[in-house]
Amino acid sequence: MKPKAFCRIAATLILPALLLQAEEGMWTFDNPPVKQLQEKYHFTPTREWLDHVRLASVRLSDGGSGSFVSPHGLLLTNHHVALAQLQKDSTPEHDYVKNGFYAATPDYEMKSQDLEVNVLISMEDVTARVQAALKNAKTTEQEFAARKAAIADIERESQQKTGLQAEVVTLYQGGEYWLYRYKKYTDVRVVFAPEEQIAFFGGDPDNFTYPRYDLDMALFRVYENGKPIESKEYLKWNPKGAADNELVFVPGNPGSTERLDTMAQLTFERDFVEPSILKILKRRLDVLRRYSEQGPEQAREAVEHSRRLENSLKAYEGRYQGLLDNHVMAKKEQEEHDFQVMVMARPDWKEAYGGAWKAIAEAEKKAESRAKEQYFHGFDSDLAEFARIIVQYVAEVKKPDGERLAGYHEAQLDSLRFELASPAPIYKAMEIARITGALEVDLEDVGKDDPFLKLVLNGKSPKEVATELVNGTKLDDPATRKKLMEGGEAAVAASDDAMIVLARKLDPMRREFIKWREDNVVSVLQKAGEQIGKARFAVYGKTTYPDATFTLRLSYGQVKGYPMNGTNAPYKTTFYGLYDRAASFDYDDPYGLPSRYKEGRTKLDLSTPFNFVSTNDVVGGNSGSPVINRNAEVVGLIFDGNIESLVGDFVYDPEKNRSVSVHTAAMTEALRKLYDVPELLDELIADK
Amino acid sequence: MKPKAFCRIAATLILPALLLQAEEGMWTFDNPPVKQLQEKYHFTPTREWLDHVRLASVRLSDGGSGSFVSPHGLLLTNHHVALAQLQKDSTPEHDYVKNGFYAATPDYEMKSQDLEVNVLISMEDVTARVQAALKNAKTTEQEFAARKAAIADIERESQQKTGLQAEVVTLYQGGEYWLYRYKKYTDVRVVFAPEEQIAFFGGDPDNFTYPRYDLDMALFRVYENGKPIESKEYLKWNPKGAADNELVFVPGNPGSTERLDTMAQLTFERDFVEPSILKILKRRLDVLRRYSEQGPEQAREAVEHSRRLENSLKAYEGRYQGLLDNHVMAKKEQEEHDFQVMVMARPDWKEAYGGAWKAIAEAEKKAESRAKEQYFHGFDSDLAEFARIIVQYVAEVKKPDGERLAGYHEAQLDSLRFELASPAPIYKAMEIARITGALEVDLEDVGKDDPFLKLVLNGKSPKEVATELVNGTKLDDPATRKKLMEGGEAAVAASDDAMIVLARKLDPMRREFIKWREDNVVSVLQKAGEQIGKARFAVYGKTTYPDATFTLRLSYGQVKGYPMNGTNAPYKTTFYGLYDRAASFDYDDPYGLPSRYKEGRTKLDLSTPFNFVSTNDVVGGNSGSPVINRNAEVVGLIFDGNIESLVGDFVYDPEKNRSVSVHTAAMTEALRKLYDVPELLDELIADK
Repeated sequence: MKPKAFCRIAATLILPALLLQAEEGMWTFDNPPVKQLQEKYHFTPTREWLDHVRLASVRLSDGGSGSFVSPHGLLLTNHHVALAQLQKDSTPEHDYVKNGFYAATPDYEMKSQDLEVNVLISMEDVTARVQAALKNAKTTEQEFAARKAAIADIERESQQKTGLQAEVVTLYQGGEYWLYRYKKYTDVRVVFAPEEQIAFFGGDPDNFTYPRYDLDMALFRVYENGKPIESKEYLKWNPKGAADNELVFVPGNPGSTERLDTMAQLTFERDFVEPSILKILKRRLDVLRRYSEQGPEQAREAVEHSRRLENSLKAYEGRYQGLLDNHVMAKKEQEEHDFQVMVMARPDWKEAYGGAWKAIAEAEKKAESRAKEQYFHGFDSDLAEFARIIVQYVAEVKKPDGERLAGYHEAQLDSLRFELASPAPIYKAMEIARITGALEVDLEDVGKDDPFLKLVLNGKSPKEVATELVNGTKLDDPATRKKLMEGGEAAVAASDDAMIVLARKLDPMRREFIKWREDNVVSVLQKAGEQIGKARFAVYGKTTYPDATFTLRLSYGQVKGYPMNGTNAPYKTTFYGLYDRAASFDYDDPYGLPSRYKEGRTKLDLSTPFNFVSTNDVVGGNSGSPVINRNAEVVGLIFDGNIESLVGDFVYDPEKNRSVSVHTAAMTEALRKLYDVPELLDELIADK
Repeated sequence: MKPKAFCRIAATLILPALLLQAEEGMWTFDNPPVKQLQEKYHFTPTREWLDHVRLASVRLSDGGSGSFVSPHGLLLTNHHVALAQLQKDSTPEHDYVKNGFYAATPDYEMKSQDLEVNVLISMEDVTARVQAALKNAKTTEQEFAARKAAIADIERESQQKTGLQAEVVTLYQGGEYWLYRYKKYTDVRVVFAPEEQIAFFGGDPDNFTYPRYDLDMALFRVYENGKPIESKEYLKWNPKGAADNELVFVPGNPGSTERLDTMAQLTFERDFVEPSILKILKRRLDVLRRYSEQGPEQAREAVEHSRRLENSLKAYEGRYQGLLDNHVMAKKEQEEHDFQVMVMARPDWKEAYGGAWKAIAEAEKKAESRAKEQYFHGFDSDLAEFARIIVQYVAEVKKPDGERLAGYHEAQLDSLRFELASPAPIYKAMEIARITGALEVDLEDVGKDDPFLKLVLNGKSPKEVATELVNGTKLDDPATRKKLMEGGEAAVAASDDAMIVLARKLDPMRREFIKWREDNVVSVLQKAGEQIGKARFAVYGKTTYPDATFTLRLSYGQVKGYPMNGTNAPYKTTFYGLYDRAASFDYDDPYGLPSRYKEGRTKLDLSTPFNFVSTNDVVGGNSGSPVINRNAEVVGLIFDGNIESLVGDFVYDPEKNRSVSVHTAAMTEALRKLYDVPELLDELIADK
């Protein structure tokens, strides 16, 4: 028997390694890449180090990350993350987007209108409880319902017990379920923001590229009970910043990746999803551009949304190019093939997991049959979105928690109500333009005989309908929204608000589609995802990281240039480069400089590092993450990835994938020499 | 009959246009792109304009171009073109490559050791005479001999009649033959050269890329009879330089392109020629790098040759990538297909030209059968090259002109003798290293039983043979070379110089190979090339330009940025960018700055344009060409193409192909603020 036993041991020892690239990975804080760090950098983060970094890191509801950088709740993030709030706080008279903002004392700090900040307090593995709940389910649909109910129960129970915001996160495609508990802050005030011209120097053309020269920073202060929070869990500011080849970490919340998707999913993504989204984004951007051309006030109103669309468009174009790249697809196919061979080689694995790929392929086929409804039944309207939520909300909250539609579970309601209570301005003329544009695209893609469009248009033109809806609604007033939500089904049924009336009419159609997708697509993907997740653990062990889920992750990497366009991109840029790029384009938009920079040039040490690149594996959602050194000091601020990183949603390329950060030396130099902010500098650089 | 006649006229009217890209073309001065210029830029160069530009332009025997920029023979070219002469003039004590050079008065101007400058005085179409000479030839071999004799006759007759250097140039693959007559200057003195560190800032990594920050300029003065030449044919210096979108011209001598090659030729190039050349270049560069590492003096000796190899390697890598690019090859294939369809559709064309493609394909097959001998029977040695030439020379000059080997025709002998009389230093230790390296590569590729290697090595190692040869020769002394050439066959036969002895032994083998290639490859390619050239005129008319032949051409284009790496490359860079790139790499080699630039920074207006890009269609050989405006004033100095232009040997891409130039504003600013050269500035900027 000995040889056999030996063979089995050997088989365990030579567990096929998942071929992770150096520096690849968005690791969960329960499973940091200790081995890789020790081997390459001789550094092992302690539990205290990890806890401290986690508690100093935040997630922002506007879709980014940030970190505490003073004991008094000072929060560092990107200007482009803060932009939504700056936009909402601005008026034609006070344009904080254009001119920047600074509050020298707390009195002047400017309250954000609907920004929520989350700090991840604890993590608990609840895989066993979720899986146990599925035991008695006989069909995929029953499993779906049981899983949903179990998750709602876990979240609700935790929230009632701890008072912390609870979220069950699906990791490894369902290989694991974790309960994440967050401390939630909703009183978040703007302290400092530079002019958008310097924060977003180079604009859309330079977005997702490098070398770069952007002071993409903003500072908030987090309050609780009307006072700035006080905490030792903050990251110290290192004004010297990152050095070449230095080991650096990025704690943050990468949004989503599809690195573990099957070929069937990637193919559907490539052939249907991406082209549809690209079309929609382009058209929506056209609408906003035309709107902006009407005048400076319209341009001001549209700026934040335009930036968001431009950013998405460029990111999706990069993703799409990645999917069209035969090398990328061949690599994914090979990986899937190797994985399947391992699974199919053991009868028990084959039995338990082997059917997952086929199930996913079939579900994607079904998804495709009604995919147009998913993408081309849209309004592109904040007001229509309010109406949809209100109509669903009043019905859902009456149901048992576990049976509600996604988004309306007990643990989610606080944040939902906060969002709907936002006093942020709604620009009605812009709403009309956006709805008109969206309905025109819908019309092109599903045709006038489509039931949704028949109901919405009812023989009228997109523009007529958009105008009637927007002029016939009061949902731009948060009080109206609140009243309807509190009034429940009766209030909603009685409303003659045009948006609510339409949302009521659309409600059955929407529910039918959600149900159909749950039964035919979502439930199948969840079940098959769990199987593949378990199979991956069985074959490779837990040697890897899960796809991004907009939850806290740790990435490690090295400050490092890369081969670019026949030469090398340097690891850093300097202020010299800012002035070079501006002058090279004759200061034409988007390469103009704020007057502060033109006039203050001689005050600056132009050789100060400005932006830098590192091999950290980050994606959208990581925006605003701190870059920290071994001592957990801030040495930079993530704000972008290079163009080569856009394929990172599917694969990580260690040779060319780079994250792009603002160097702390640049932030310090600019704050010190160009902005009159002594109080802020004192707080930031305590030891100076 | 009318319809038929009508049809014929229609066929003429709708002559299928060769789809030239905007700005494409290296046009001969007899056939400038007048139509394109008029249509797009409403500019028509006059005959005077063209003559003036041609007479102010020069070709340099070191392989570049240049222009006269003062009435006193001041000649502007690139530092990297002047580098060979600077290297030859330098000593361990006076390193003009490293430190630069300036002669405030003519007395201090430094004579080049073997630089020849040519000015194109006249052009004459001799196609009819060459074609007439072939009439009685019955075989391809006879045609080859007749063509060769006719060309030698034309050149010799012209030279005897006019005293001007005569060259018959094959254009359009033999569709036309032109007699070009040159005024030749051999007394060319260095006036100014900057430090190599600023001329070649960014070194090999930045070579062939953009954005760029190189002051790649040098100034010679051309003498005749011991005095500077005086001439009105010079280009005025425009210190403002090129502006965005401006129409600019580049007169210069592009080296060679293969845009009209057939697929059979391109495929052979891709599958055999390029990989062989790349291998040889890499190995030769390795040898020089190892040699340079032995010490600073060795590094100094090797610098110019290393630069040349690095440059070739990067250029060939770009070419090779172009040939490997399926889009490029598909485009070429489509072009060839369309052209063939047109030719084959008319019986007379089919009869006269239709066989050419097959003939070329067969010749390339034959070439392949002995191609290894062509590439892997090499020495990489100046001394061995001297020996080969001397041994061939003494035999060839006794033959009738028309029967000599290429290179030894009467009209070519003056330049050949000038070259062999060069007093430039030969570094013997470097020769040994180079020969050893080359023989090692030969050994790898053709094996020790190859007749050439058997003869050369004779049982010894490459290093032993290299050492014996170099130590046993006196060919490093120009007097020795002169004596042997003048002594004729008897002197060569009696010589016991090791290099001469070996060259004598190799002579029969070399002659056999030349003859075999002439009979089987060259003669077939010449005949088929002529057929295709005529076919192209028949099908498309003379609406295009011939492949580059290191003869004078005119390119037109526009100052214009281009899409790069996800964003846009600006049309120009500035001095700010120089300091940015230097600081971004922490001033590490090759991004160090000469102390003059570090210390003189504050004297400069850093926003001065430094380098710029334009759509001009240029390739290697154009280095040193002036960029001129409509008034034929110098607004820039070509020194490179971007990485996207390397595929330009095969196709021109108007979207991304850019030539890279030094801006006259940068040259003026640097000369004025950093270099103490008032006399030079006075001469250059006469009106200041």
